[in-house]
Amino acid sequence: MTELMNRLAALAQCTDGDGLTRLFLSPAHQRAAALVKSWMEQAGLTAHIDAIGNVVGDNGVPGPKLILGSHIDTVRNAGWYDGNYGVLAAIEALARCQSLPFGVEVIAFGDEEGVRFPTTLAGSRAIAGTFDHKTLIGRDAAGTTMSEALQAFGGDPNLIITEARNPADVLGYIELHIEQGPVLEANNLPAGIVTAIAGASRYVVTITGAAGHAGTVPMAMRRDALTTAAEFFLAVEATARAHPHTVATVGAVTVKPGAPNSIPGEVTFTIDLRAPEDSTRHAAAAAIQAAFTRIAAARHQTFTITQTHNAPATACAPWLQSQLAAALKTHNIPPFHLPSGAGHDAMALASLCPVAMLFIRCAGGISHTPAESITAEDAETGVQILISFLQNFRPEPKNV
Amino acid sequence: MTELMNRLAALAQCTDGDGLTRLFLSPAHQRAAALVKSWMEQAGLTAHIDAIGNVVGDNGVPGPKLILGSHIDTVRNAGWYDGNYGVLAAIEALARCQSLPFGVEVIAFGDEEGVRFPTTLAGSRAIAGTFDHKTLIGRDAAGTTMSEALQAFGGDPNLIITEARNPADVLGYIELHIEQGPVLEANNLPAGIVTAIAGASRYVVTITGAAGHAGTVPMAMRRDALTTAAEFFLAVEATARAHPHTVATVGAVTVKPGAPNSIPGEVTFTIDLRAPEDSTRHAAAAAIQAAFTRIAAARHQTFTITQTHNAPATACAPWLQSQLAAALKTHNIPPFHLPSGAGHDAMALASLCPVAMLFIRCAGGISHTPAESITAEDAETGVQILISFLQNFRPEPKNV
Repeated sequence: MTELMNRLAALAQCTDGDGLTRLFLSPAHQRAAALVKSWMEQAGLTAHIDAIGNVVGDNGVPGPKLILGSHIDTVRNAGWYDGNYGVLAAIEALARCQSLPFGVEVIAFGDEEGVRFPTTLAGSRAIAGTFDHKTLIGRDAAGTTMSEALQAFGGDPNLIITEARNPADVLGYIELHIEQGPVLEANNLPAGIVTAIAGASRYVVTITGAAGHAGTVPMAMRRDALTTAAEFFLAVEATARAHPHTVATVGAVTVKPGAPNSIPGEVTFTIDLRAPEDSTRHAAAAAIQAAFTRIAAARHQTFTITQTHNAPATACAPWLQSQLAAALKTHNIPPFHLPSGAGHDAMALASLCPVAMLFIRCAGGISHTPAESITAEDAETGVQILISFLQNFRPEPKNV
Repeated sequence: MTELMNRLAALAQCTDGDGLTRLFLSPAHQRAAALVKSWMEQAGLTAHIDAIGNVVGDNGVPGPKLILGSHIDTVRNAGWYDGNYGVLAAIEALARCQSLPFGVEVIAFGDEEGVRFPTTLAGSRAIAGTFDHKTLIGRDAAGTTMSEALQAFGGDPNLIITEARNPADVLGYIELHIEQGPVLEANNLPAGIVTAIAGASRYVVTITGAAGHAGTVPMAMRRDALTTAAEFFLAVEATARAHPHTVATVGAVTVKPGAPNSIPGEVTFTIDLRAPEDSTRHAAAAAIQAAFTRIAAARHQTFTITQTHNAPATACAPWLQSQLAAALKTHNIPPFHLPSGAGHDAMALASLCPVAMLFIRCAGGISHTPAESITAEDAETGVQILISFLQNFRPEPKNV
């Protein structure tokens, strides 16, 4: 087993429950932050834990800095690699290339999963200067506010603002992360370059038909909300298939009355729509709504659609993607580009600086469960790609 | 308000809760039985409550008897007319035609809805000689057995067997009932002749696909159990539409994991399939399963289908339907025939004697709720049709 895989296993022992559960500002987070800080120091970095609970390591080279990072909080009963891999891979890479001619920071963010408090990305938003102080009064399930939890952790709500970086002082942000999807595995590749973090829209849709007795209402007289919903579900699927790199999912469905002998009178369901380009996502959303309107009219039913979430896409900087591609080629890996369907700290950093991400293959596309898995070889490949990238890094070319 | 409608309102006061809730062998059932018995006696019948809790009134004419009836138990929070109308209409009809040349019994059955104990049709099965004594040990939600409840009611489990009629002593069974569907109302008719009580099949179907992250699995790599289910739902609908007088309903659906950001990996749903001819029902079931197999294969998913209920259709006797048709014509109502999608006591009586049913229009096809409604005019029309039928009744012609 490699040192990196050993550290990932050791970090997974910092948990507050069965399996790996490490929520933002929890005791497990505190133990993990201390451990990560010690590894940063072993790698030759000057490290501290900042006012919002980020662990920050610095190579001490003056001037603008490249930021490397990911997160060390987890979902409940998590896998070992989501977030944690990106942090430890960055530390490992810096341990192996001590004499870089430019400043580098490694940051282990603490709030990417957004499980404990009502918001997310507190750590990366603080660095980007977009932290929303109103979120400090949000409470966890036990009634503790984020502000209280942060002070118990050793942070300082009043100093969060001082953690914001000046854009002029930042060269860019690079994040390594497991893919959390099956695409690299299906393409037999250990790593791939992220083109964009998909923008996401969520909707709640309610169809109103007419309930009735399953035995006594002839088919021709029915207004069954579920068969209308069935056509809606297929329209969502067909629309996503028809738009490039777009995914759309109906994940939750409620049928009323919901009895075997009752014709459904009302169906409520969710839509999750993501695309790496916002224009594509908006076009798909419009196509879905047009299909719904057509289907509902043909079935003499009505529907409402309410948008519950709207996050724009985050494009990865082409010049950083090019330098990552060059690093992949150094290791004889064809540069493969793919969008990220999941959100990452890079979304917050994108308002501060150019960002890029390197995805590492994971088994079966599985994440957020103990079955999450990567190989030691792929983990090492990611580190080697990052080292090559750092050794050949050139800041963004000036615009002409 | 007519006397019949007044009695229906008075009978609705025999309840054990808010609204009308009158379960088999309950205190409300006991009060209702006593009231119905008194009305039978006022109509000139000799009345008693039998060993299984049926209220039985007899016009005293010797020889084989025509049985008229329906039920006086209800669902929870019921309407006033389901069952009760058929009993009170029969009493009203006999009160107005005292000098029939043949024997008539009116029976108010007590267990058509099957809400309290695990079985149903106890009263009508006792009369038909098909009562299953094993059902006496079935318990209600409070732990009371049917046997205990029957004894508390004043019945006698040991004498149920003596209530069975000899087929040679029964001319037929006629039941008036609200339609519980929208067909008569849509055809602007106060009454219609039932062709058959539909046979019913119920199934539970489980589709197994592959769960996944709604953002990270491209459409082409998904095995979404819900979009497969959507095609199944539409196949159920299309199959029912393609088979005469057949209805099929997907009423209950469970989606797993059931989260907005998860691709559904498993969907379980119910099918309720009914048709007035068993051959049609079986053909429709086979067509549905063939469609499921085709759809699942195309989507690389598997499914299981388990039959949970199978009740054969009950045909109504053509010669009784003809005599009902003649009675309708007497009142200038075009004889309209329709199947019954819901079950009735006539299903149990059919093993004893020829049966027929007359449906009365109800508002909006609504039943089993306080919104259940019939007009006083339609209620009176039903009584008049029954009187004409009785006055012109001729026993079944001998087979050649």
